[in-house]
Amino acid sequence: MTQVTLNVEGMSCNHCVKAVEGAVQNAGGTAKVDLASKTVEIEFEESKATLKAIKEAIEDQGYDVV
Amino acid sequence: MTQVTLNVEGMSCNHCVKAVEGAVQNAGGTAKVDLASKTVEIEFEESKATLKAIKEAIEDQGYDVV
Repeated sequence: MTQVTLNVEGMSCNHCVKAVEGAVQNAGGTAKVDLASKTVEIEFEESKATLKAIKEAIEDQGYDVV
Repeated sequence: MTQVTLNVEGMSCNHCVKAVEGAVQNAGGTAKVDLASKTVEIEFEESKATLKAIKEAIEDQGYDVV
């Protein structure tokens, strides 16, 4: 299992939390958003997902991975 | 047609806009949210909806009508 913490700009409310967590799940990982610190803890199997695809899924929801 | 502008706290993103506009529609009115001014322009027919029910629908989504 690979673990990464991303800094993500633009998340402001619980709808954003669900949008980001859902996008990461669809990309094959799991995510835990912390709104206060603007971070997303990601876990994924290298055999099932890529960090690139997960980042793109978050950005497709309208957020900036910084 | 009755028109009312409400001040609503807690709306931060486009998900919030959709949540508020959808809640007002479900309560029998129409709504246009302006995030910058934290206002919601409401229209409804007195025969079909009440302002009380519309305000409650917005608050049920987790926002404060002030």
